[in-house]
Amino acid sequence: MPAPRIAVLAGGVGGARFVRGVRHHARAAWPDGAGGSTASITVIANTGDDLWLAGLRVTPDLDSLLYALAGVNDTVRGWGRAGESERVSGELTAYGVGWPWFTLGDLDLGTHIARTALLHEGRPLSEVVARLSARWPLGIRLLPATDAEVETHVLVHEDGVARELHFEEWWVRTRASLPAEAFLQPGAERARPAPGVEAAIAEADVVLIAPSNPVVSIGTILGIPGIREALAATAAPVVGVSPIIGGSAVRGMADACLHAIGVETSAAAVARHYGARSVGGLLDGWLVDRRDAADVEALGAAGIPARAVPLWMHDDERSAAIAAEALDLAAAR
Amino acid sequence: MPAPRIAVLAGGVGGARFVRGVRHHARAAWPDGAGGSTASITVIANTGDDLWLAGLRVTPDLDSLLYALAGVNDTVRGWGRAGESERVSGELTAYGVGWPWFTLGDLDLGTHIARTALLHEGRPLSEVVARLSARWPLGIRLLPATDAEVETHVLVHEDGVARELHFEEWWVRTRASLPAEAFLQPGAERARPAPGVEAAIAEADVVLIAPSNPVVSIGTILGIPGIREALAATAAPVVGVSPIIGGSAVRGMADACLHAIGVETSAAAVARHYGARSVGGLLDGWLVDRRDAADVEALGAAGIPARAVPLWMHDDERSAAIAAEALDLAAAR
Repeated sequence: MPAPRIAVLAGGVGGARFVRGVRHHARAAWPDGAGGSTASITVIANTGDDLWLAGLRVTPDLDSLLYALAGVNDTVRGWGRAGESERVSGELTAYGVGWPWFTLGDLDLGTHIARTALLHEGRPLSEVVARLSARWPLGIRLLPATDAEVETHVLVHEDGVARELHFEEWWVRTRASLPAEAFLQPGAERARPAPGVEAAIAEADVVLIAPSNPVVSIGTILGIPGIREALAATAAPVVGVSPIIGGSAVRGMADACLHAIGVETSAAAVARHYGARSVGGLLDGWLVDRRDAADVEALGAAGIPARAVPLWMHDDERSAAIAAEALDLAAAR
Repeated sequence: MPAPRIAVLAGGVGGARFVRGVRHHARAAWPDGAGGSTASITVIANTGDDLWLAGLRVTPDLDSLLYALAGVNDTVRGWGRAGESERVSGELTAYGVGWPWFTLGDLDLGTHIARTALLHEGRPLSEVVARLSARWPLGIRLLPATDAEVETHVLVHEDGVARELHFEEWWVRTRASLPAEAFLQPGAERARPAPGVEAAIAEADVVLIAPSNPVVSIGTILGIPGIREALAATAAPVVGVSPIIGGSAVRGMADACLHAIGVETSAAAVARHYGARSVGGLLDGWLVDRRDAADVEALGAAGIPARAVPLWMHDDERSAAIAAEALDLAAAR
């Protein structure tokens, strides 16, 4: 197989682990002789979690991807920068500015300040991401799903009052403890995919769906008009990796999100939610964990060729093996 | 003498030392029984050094005043916060954002982020300053000279090319080494004094001019339409303290600024530049250092009653003694 062009739809931390695996596999399978790969990898990242906080534009998923791909992420804590400190945050709290429950590390703030400065110069987010990414040799092109400020809101009742919270407030402050009644993306209908997104999907040899939150990560990307159409039109096979293992989310609180849209927390239910491509859905293939091997046959019968493999992404080697399985399943279409 | 209402025109670091002295003296002369003073002190601060840097609004003189009055300033380095670190700045440099020669400390950045967030909410600078000041019991009301973004620019020739630099770029990057051909304040003619500034001058029992840069600190304040008029109209005596001792600037590079406007670097020349109030100028009195005692008589003959006292502000006690002399000279009008 010649070095492929790979497009990956991804959310934050889980997406980053998977994308590191894709890169790791590509470097081994299609080496460029200098430690990199001749394969071309484009990541289309969720921007629905983005928010304005203390006057700064924060893009949690893009940052998780950037830091993990740069190798400067905090692998113990699971998010943010390694060796982080919170001196600036302490000042903001003392001045009563920002959200005291939303921690902004000092190194992380450097990224937010740089991003915000570039945005205020009038640059679109995609250009800002390219500029920030250029600091490190990522070996991957990182694209926001859209340059538009389309943020995910969550309808909840808090203390008996209906409220519309920013996703991050619901996720971080309430730890998703308030039942989500609906997820909204105000303005999504007027958004367009960022430059390069549709072309990356159209020109891909394979499209992968990372094991990210199907509702607020992948679902948000798919909610940008034009992206679902590009996925339907591409000649490339589209293969997803289940974020659910044995009825539980691998990370995060995906069950709280799936419940809100009436989807069961299971690998098979998420695959059916995405749908078989042969009947207008998204998927040409689906990887489930070995624990969910019993679902493989029924999914196949429903038009979604599935395969059961170990899905826990303990390290780059395991993530790379998952990526290799996904590419193999795509090639088998 | 009953507890007076004192208005002080001030720049940054030197102004802050002087204002600490005014407060120190007031606490001793008009104690409120709780460690404070029944005197009312309003500081009208220069905003000409303010700048947008990396998308953040930085107000150097207001910050020098705020930190010094709060007792959190770095007294060794002479500027910024005590116990400062520069982790965020390192990130900005790595991303290529901002001015690498303009150091933004982490604690200091907390202030800039908070200020910028409040400004982006649509609050005027004076309200933002009040909000940030409320963090500490300053015992002093801090006012920006204006809410308008009037920044001081410097006309220079650099490498043979005429350029208009922001004052901070000229001051910090070039260390004022490029001869200043002129100081400009684009937009000053449309600016108005911040709310409270004109009233503070009108209702003052005494107005003091801190030993700050006569051109780019005090001169910039006086360049805001309405402030010079308020000073001319107030019933209060106006007494200044010389920032020049024995032909040298006490701090900073005031000579480079004075030269540009054709004023000699001497205590007497600065007094004459401000002018005697009796002939339409600013001053009812002028404090010079003992080294400049020879100028006292001629200044008096020129309508500016002067007095020679030790002007080095080594500590709050010395600064308080200078403030007491200034108030005494004012009372003698």
